[in-house]
Amino acid sequence: MIRRRDEMRLELKERMRDGEGTVSLLHLVEGSTMKNARLLSEVTIPPGASIGEHRHDAETEYYIILEGEGTVIDNGVPQTVHAGDVVITGDGASHSIKNTGAVPLKLLAVIITY
Amino acid sequence: MIRRRDEMRLELKERMRDGEGTVSLLHLVEGSTMKNARLLSEVTIPPGASIGEHRHDAETEYYIILEGEGTVIDNGVPQTVHAGDVVITGDGASHSIKNTGAVPLKLLAVIITY
Repeated sequence: MIRRRDEMRLELKERMRDGEGTVSLLHLVEGSTMKNARLLSEVTIPPGASIGEHRHDAETEYYIILEGEGTVIDNGVPQTVHAGDVVITGDGASHSIKNTGAVPLKLLAVIITY
Repeated sequence: MIRRRDEMRLELKERMRDGEGTVSLLHLVEGSTMKNARLLSEVTIPPGASIGEHRHDAETEYYIILEGEGTVIDNGVPQTVHAGDVVITGDGASHSIKNTGAVPLKLLAVIITY
């Protein structure tokens, strides 16, 4: 099956996970249609906006950074991320991500469940 | 945990799944380290090269097209794909993909297992 970009659902989330600003999620696949996964979405974080810190239990989230740069708090440790980096958060670990650059921070988010 | 691009393993596959040419896979995460997934890789298919037709049983593969264009045989039906499209293949369905454009066809491949 092929899904075209213009049929994908765009969701805007304000203060996502108690972060700042408005983050947009383009759902490449709807979570309810997947087995052993609940999110496969392109996430856009405008400059200065963020997704607040949160834990992942019984699942792992992968952030694949596509464009821009930001700061991730990776299980308590601040780290700078750029296009090409991958953030892996699961088994009770936590993360947050903030766009600290001048252009939109784009990433692909995948959540695989257990 | 953060994985940086320069620590990811690059694998070259000739005639992948009986396709043409050489396809490269940059393993963003090693399959052996994931639960309920066995591939999370950036795949580059040069112009004219392809991944041959193959089935996915007890798993679903998602191709997220990042750059370029190509032809997918989606469970028997040829379809053109471009950046932004997503190809979903699981539950015994088959697919192949060929770069029919003039620039490298790049996609993110995710295989979620059951």
